[in-house]
Amino acid sequence: MYPFADQEIYPFNQWYIAAWSQEIGRELISKTILGTPVVMYRTVEGEPVALADRCPHRGYPLSKSTLDGNTVQCRYHGFKYNETGRCIEIPSQSDVPPSFSARAYPVREVWQWVWIWMGDPELADFSKIPDPNVIKLDAPGWLPSVGGTVDLKCRYQILNENLLDLSHLTFLHDGTIGDSELAMTKVHMNETPERLELARYVKSIDMDSLPAGKALNLEGPVDRTVAQLFYPPSFHMTGSDFDSAAADGIEPGRHFGSVRVLHGVTPKTPTTTSYFWAFSRDFKPAPEMTKIFHGVILSALEEDIDALTAIEDLLNIEQEKIRQISATADLASFRGRLLVQRQIRAERRTPETVP
Amino acid sequence: MYPFADQEIYPFNQWYIAAWSQEIGRELISKTILGTPVVMYRTVEGEPVALADRCPHRGYPLSKSTLDGNTVQCRYHGFKYNETGRCIEIPSQSDVPPSFSARAYPVREVWQWVWIWMGDPELADFSKIPDPNVIKLDAPGWLPSVGGTVDLKCRYQILNENLLDLSHLTFLHDGTIGDSELAMTKVHMNETPERLELARYVKSIDMDSLPAGKALNLEGPVDRTVAQLFYPPSFHMTGSDFDSAAADGIEPGRHFGSVRVLHGVTPKTPTTTSYFWAFSRDFKPAPEMTKIFHGVILSALEEDIDALTAIEDLLNIEQEKIRQISATADLASFRGRLLVQRQIRAERRTPETVP
Amino acid sequence: MYPFADQEIYPFNQWYIAAWSQEIGRELISKTILGTPVVMYRTVEGEPVALADRCPHRGYPLSKSTLDGNTVQCRYHGFKYNETGRCIEIPSQSDVPPSFSARAYPVREVWQWVWIWMGDPELADFSKIPDPNVIKLDAPGWLPSVGGTVDLKCRYQILNENLLDLSHLTFLHDGTIGDSELAMTKVHMNETPERLELARYVKSIDMDSLPAGKALNLEGPVDRTVAQLFYPPSFHMTGSDFDSAAADGIEPGRHFGSVRVLHGVTPKTPTTTSYFWAFSRDFKPAPEMTKIFHGVILSALEEDIDALTAIEDLLNIEQEKIRQISATADLASFRGRLLVQRQIRAERRTPETVP
Repeated sequence: MYPFADQEIYPFNQWYIAAWSQEIGRELISKTILGTPVVMYRTVEGEPVALADRCPHRGYPLSKSTLDGNTVQCRYHGFKYNETGRCIEIPSQSDVPPSFSARAYPVREVWQWVWIWMGDPELADFSKIPDPNVIKLDAPGWLPSVGGTVDLKCRYQILNENLLDLSHLTFLHDGTIGDSELAMTKVHMNETPERLELARYVKSIDMDSLPAGKALNLEGPVDRTVAQLFYPPSFHMTGSDFDSAAADGIEPGRHFGSVRVLHGVTPKTPTTTSYFWAFSRDFKPAPEMTKIFHGVILSALEEDIDALTAIEDLLNIEQEKIRQISATADLASFRGRLLVQRQIRAERRTPETVP
Repeated sequence: MYPFADQEIYPFNQWYIAAWSQEIGRELISKTILGTPVVMYRTVEGEPVALADRCPHRGYPLSKSTLDGNTVQCRYHGFKYNETGRCIEIPSQSDVPPSFSARAYPVREVWQWVWIWMGDPELADFSKIPDPNVIKLDAPGWLPSVGGTVDLKCRYQILNENLLDLSHLTFLHDGTIGDSELAMTKVHMNETPERLELARYVKSIDMDSLPAGKALNLEGPVDRTVAQLFYPPSFHMTGSDFDSAAADGIEPGRHFGSVRVLHGVTPKTPTTTSYFWAFSRDFKPAPEMTKIFHGVILSALEEDIDALTAIEDLLNIEQEKIRQISATADLASFRGRLLVQRQIRAERRTPETVP
Repeated sequence: MYPFADQEIYPFNQWYIAAWSQEIGRELISKTILGTPVVMYRTVEGEPVALADRCPHRGYPLSKSTLDGNTVQCRYHGFKYNETGRCIEIPSQSDVPPSFSARAYPVREVWQWVWIWMGDPELADFSKIPDPNVIKLDAPGWLPSVGGTVDLKCRYQILNENLLDLSHLTFLHDGTIGDSELAMTKVHMNETPERLELARYVKSIDMDSLPAGKALNLEGPVDRTVAQLFYPPSFHMTGSDFDSAAADGIEPGRHFGSVRVLHGVTPKTPTTTSYFWAFSRDFKPAPEMTKIFHGVILSALEEDIDALTAIEDLLNIEQEKIRQISATADLASFRGRLLVQRQIRAERRTPETVP
């Protein structure tokens, strides 16, 4: 489906954020991820668990059942499943055939997020989860903070392309984080099958012209580096480094500070998305500053939510074939689209590795 | 569709309960049965009538029209149809071509239920309607009572399999009619193309351990016979006979009483079902006892409604192919599934007999 | 889809009413027409404009964007489009490739209506819009009045056939504009590919028997000419001329008055319709009479809305193939159906002319 071909929706053999750490505890909770209901809980030992949220016997949701120790007992017929999904008891008979099991999904908790692998478990490579050091959630001198979850009524890929695209800042975000120079700045792009890296260097800008600048109460011209990382199909880091401009009399080359927004993009269904966001910075550690930073992010987020929902609504009315034209500034989001499409197609070419 | 193959939904050439007798009178009412709108009323002589609830002329619902004597006059253009569906007047012309007719469905009132045949009228065999003597609605010494109708937001076959399955009693109904021994008791099964008969013999049980036992205020060990009849695809009788245990000192072999629940299962649409239930017993005829018995049934019913709705909800989210594993205790419900599937496939093999 | 074949919905290369003149101003408004979102506004010079309501760049609705002079600037990325749909500015780059444009739809304002052509612009022939002189909206001696818009939850063609059919007046409108003689009167029909003309001559009728007659406070027998024009697929004129009966002693041949109802039928989606109605007459010009005439029309309209919605509801429940029988009185509506179907099929045969 748009922006991909008809039968192309999302890749399964990839890591997605399933939940915040604090959501997963000793209660059974249900999440829908890539169109699939998943039940999640934490073992007595504290390990997160994700199983298919349907008893494989007669389809009752395990999330409406009972957790006892590390075992989920289906409320309908009392079948018990352990944390690996294996059925360990069928009340009406003495033995359990070995094939009886609920599907278990590989999960890994990194920083405050529980990541999930919805595809072939054999292919789940934990090293492909974004490195918390690289994405500044567990890096020396950085202070990460938990943002929130947004339930988006739009398909995930238009959020991905929104995040890769800086040319909308001037317009959609004119009252918040808008910046008219950024989209015109030359972008340096580095692409691998697993990551898209973008950088823009803006020299000698007036900090007062930026919302972040006002919040920081800085003066004088600064050099700004705008950095973006995209781990297709589900994670972005975006942010800026601010340093005193080389040509500036006061404190040449001094580092003022860096900010990063972290964005987890998890498809719930083909046309809805869970959006997990967090923030990190290397300066102004006071808690009240966290509130100020988050406030700026949230006001921009609301503008994006409105826009993306409006686009999705149109996609659902429109019956003609969608025609799309692209500008030079769409290069990054277009490369990002191709990366995700390649992931989807790789799975379709080798159906034996798809769940 | 699940639990059948993709294009298999329900058999048409079968009897289904359409309504309670008291629902059908001199007002036109609309029912949706097997995905088809049906208008029902009673003739001046008191006979129930069921016609397709669409004027065959321009599709206006006859149920929103006028009943005059035995004739329904369409509110849109005034066409008149008699109780056989034949068009007997077209106001704008003097003659009515013989082919003008609304489809009439064979109906038969038995006890307090009006049964309907949605398939080929030529094949409607009234003798296939469950015998009211066999199902204890019109049997010597039995006292039947009208239960109610539940509008279920789930496909009919998961209700059928719920009714054929006793292994869920312990768990889903642990606070109401739960019984941990029953599912482990050997089942005696007798199957014909038209009926599935099940019996379980539980010897010397403590009546106090059963909700029914408490209601009956009986003492001492009893022998219980649990009897089930399934007339695929649309009717079940379930119930128990209680007799004093043979080994019991007091009144050996004495019949304490029998209870039967009657269950009509009528698909409205592929994913919704009308569930008609009634009750019958051969003892404790006092009206206040009817209330007590119905109360026990209703509390179990609510638990089933919750479970079946939750299962249907999952079926609608899930996009992967459903994988299902079965236990030994599923034998009866699995046999019941095959009987219904065979009825569906028999119609698909001979399309000339399908409406 | 019903009443056409499966893939046949509506013809695109035809004129439809998009809006009332007073709806279109210096605010951007959104309309859905033939399943397509359209943004409409008026230029500084006062000309109505209709563009596809999706920015061709990334699909944001232009109707949620900004109008500046004659230019619409997309709120998402700031692309600017002029009133011909041509993109005239892309903020992130200096040049605009000539192919960048939003689709513009030909529109023409006639009387109080803005007509739109959703198909191939090359084929848009303004002379095919119903002549305001013929349809009595701009004719000497006639007084047109603005009616209103009804959002109908039914497919457009059942409204078209309702408007072409007088045999339902007696029944559906028995309390309002019902007339039992009309459906029996011989109809004179003249058909061209572009228009269906119907006339019925009713001689020496008692004006008191008609709602219009009561409103007019006329006496004595009159000759009534009932006239209908259908411009497939989207416009009807219906009405009557009242003259004193030739055989009548008092004022033979005197013209009492004529009334016309004008009906614009514009599909929004395959199963919803915008219904624009207006009224015109050549007598009783007092404003309070307009209210009385409109009141009669509105009460009949409500009966039609109820009926057409009920028919659409049934079409959506019904799963069996629809069977339809027609009467002699359906000839006009049946001819009208064939005219529309022919328009649809003409487009399907020559796909190069379809958008």
